[in-house]
Amino acid sequence: MSPARIETLADGVFAIAMTLPVLDLAVLDVPPECLTTALVDLLPRFVVYATSFVVLGVYWVAHHAQFRVIDVADRPLLWINILLLMLVAFVPFSTSLLGRYFPTQAAVDVYGLVLILIGGAMYLHLVVRDDGPSTHSPGNERGIHSSRETPNILLAPVISALAILVSFLRPFVSVLMYALLPPFYILPGGIDRHFFRRRS
Amino acid sequence: MSPARIETLADGVFAIAMTLPVLDLAVLDVPPECLTTALVDLLPRFVVYATSFVVLGVYWVAHHAQFRVIDVADRPLLWINILLLMLVAFVPFSTSLLGRYFPTQAAVDVYGLVLILIGGAMYLHLVVRDDGPSTHSPGNERGIHSSRETPNILLAPVISALAILVSFLRPFVSVLMYALLPPFYILPGGIDRHFFRRRS
Amino acid sequence: MSPARIETLADGVFAIAMTLPVLDLAVLDVPPECLTTALVDLLPRFVVYATSFVVLGVYWVAHHAQFRVIDVADRPLLWINILLLMLVAFVPFSTSLLGRYFPTQAAVDVYGLVLILIGGAMYLHLVVRDDGPSTHSPGNERGIHSSRETPNILLAPVISALAILVSFLRPFVSVLMYALLPPFYILPGGIDRHFFRRRS
Amino acid sequence: MSPARIETLADGVFAIAMTLPVLDLAVLDVPPECLTTALVDLLPRFVVYATSFVVLGVYWVAHHAQFRVIDVADRPLLWINILLLMLVAFVPFSTSLLGRYFPTQAAVDVYGLVLILIGGAMYLHLVVRDDGPSTHSPGNERGIHSSRETPNILLAPVISALAILVSFLRPFVSVLMYALLPPFYILPGGIDRHFFRRRS
Repeated sequence: MSPARIETLADGVFAIAMTLPVLDLAVLDVPPECLTTALVDLLPRFVVYATSFVVLGVYWVAHHAQFRVIDVADRPLLWINILLLMLVAFVPFSTSLLGRYFPTQAAVDVYGLVLILIGGAMYLHLVVRDDGPSTHSPGNERGIHSSRETPNILLAPVISALAILVSFLRPFVSVLMYALLPPFYILPGGIDRHFFRRRS
Repeated sequence: MSPARIETLADGVFAIAMTLPVLDLAVLDVPPECLTTALVDLLPRFVVYATSFVVLGVYWVAHHAQFRVIDVADRPLLWINILLLMLVAFVPFSTSLLGRYFPTQAAVDVYGLVLILIGGAMYLHLVVRDDGPSTHSPGNERGIHSSRETPNILLAPVISALAILVSFLRPFVSVLMYALLPPFYILPGGIDRHFFRRRS
Repeated sequence: MSPARIETLADGVFAIAMTLPVLDLAVLDVPPECLTTALVDLLPRFVVYATSFVVLGVYWVAHHAQFRVIDVADRPLLWINILLLMLVAFVPFSTSLLGRYFPTQAAVDVYGLVLILIGGAMYLHLVVRDDGPSTHSPGNERGIHSSRETPNILLAPVISALAILVSFLRPFVSVLMYALLPPFYILPGGIDRHFFRRRS
Repeated sequence: MSPARIETLADGVFAIAMTLPVLDLAVLDVPPECLTTALVDLLPRFVVYATSFVVLGVYWVAHHAQFRVIDVADRPLLWINILLLMLVAFVPFSTSLLGRYFPTQAAVDVYGLVLILIGGAMYLHLVVRDDGPSTHSPGNERGIHSSRETPNILLAPVISALAILVSFLRPFVSVLMYALLPPFYILPGGIDRHFFRRRS
């Protein structure tokens, strides 16, 4: 299997999972004179959707970053990708749920659970990639990659697990914790700076 | 027609058919205090959606595998692809149906019927590919391909046909039979090992 | 503008327009014991969706065929493509309408009108392509292309216009006329045979 | 990050955002005898959807035009793209809102606000591109690009801001102002003529 094909499918699934939740907003059904109030009520949902878009953006970037050193996708790598994309396809559901039921605890926890599972799949992806014969980098550099990417990948699941714990007390705080994930990944940290500068 | 274009369209249709069924879950309409119960009730649907995602993943992999030896897509191959993608586009419907009406027999049978038709189209695809002038492999190797891929392709329709028969007695068992299909294809069998190792 | 980018966007829009109408079927809301009857009632809609999928498949093939001789997409060609894709995006609507309101005349006519507009845009696309500086073929061959493709392109709008006229008397017959379009294009005619053989 | 990957994701998000709003029309629920009247009532929505499709088409073209001189996408450029695509993903929502609540002022203003934000993101994209190390053009030519593209990019947000002001008095006029944007971009102006001729 050529890695390019997996990346094309991944781009499609990510694009759909990123764009669709907003559709959910469109089924507004109020009389015109209440529209302004209804739109103001939607504000937390806008925030949830924007957060999910960027969280998926982070994973999309991470996914392609992992593929940069892959030459051939062997069987385990292929199926971990399918698993990963399946979990990504659940994000519109958990986003929609959190947007509608915010800040009900069950919605907060489902959202976090999906992030934990995606993070786990990303980690598995990294491990399988570096164990298998699929990369073109010499063994040594591979190890460096893993040890550099691992903390970044595990951060989101760890924060999400903490957010689920916090949700038993304050579901609102958990949502704030999710909202802090994208800025962490977007602002240039040491590891990423290395990663991105290397090519320019 | 360049095979690359068909693969791009196929990637799009597969990505949509894989991602959309989850949307169907999002139209949850219960008061917040019943959310946990409602989510637990959705569990069988999650399983159905996850299964469908992986089944489509299997077909997506098989589709690209068939394209590996195609140089030029002639007219019959082109239209069998359109037919195949049309059947793939029905999977969100049969998945949604099975998720909602599980384990009603009609839903179980529609799900199986779609799998049988997709399997038939995949088989037709293989036959036309190896009969036509589209592949670059010499005649002999082509025959080897066909005889190797055929059992794999026909397994899903045969199991699905059996599942439809079983559904007259125990629809629940039929669903289990569908759920066993992805593991069979994912776990490395002899034929696939040959297929995947050859390139690495 | 590189033609490859336009083709990628077109592949996306076509894939979505082909796959989405089936979603519309999924919002079935009957008790489980009525499911079989409800599915039988859906049969004409399945036929309408399958027809639309193949009609869009025909246009997708024709679109790529036109691009085969395009080197650079100039401004007019670019915007005719956007117009064409906009009309393609209306097909899920007209398909859904025809599926639900079959055989109400208004639904039949909207379906035909969309096909006429798409056919007109395809024809405009051909004219602009051959008038502009975008193709790499010498003038003579271009003329041959146009005169060969024109009858094929104009057939669908002509049949659709006739179907709209017929719909004033027998809407059911109009739907049959739409259903005859895909077989005409799929079965190899003289012109297409030339078109497809040339490359193999 | 390779610019090609960003363009693929962008193509996906644009294709979805362009095609989905029409789906919203499909949930027509009237008895067959009222269908013609219902379709006539939908006419303003058709116009809104067609306008949105072309507006997104304009931004899609502008997005690819900006990428033409990008060799490597560094971190800021990558995230401005994610932000831009997030705003593009809101267009189906604002389109749907304007289509349903036309000409309620709140719907008109949300539509304009989304256009202003997209225009702002496009401008930021241009600035970051020309400040960063990502382009392959020499410094001088880059400056020329910016000064040439800037007026075009800023036109849509400026018109949208005016339309929002006008909406306090005449929301209907604001919608006309939005509808005038696509023709401006499509008709060949001096700057664009330069841009497109250069390659042919």
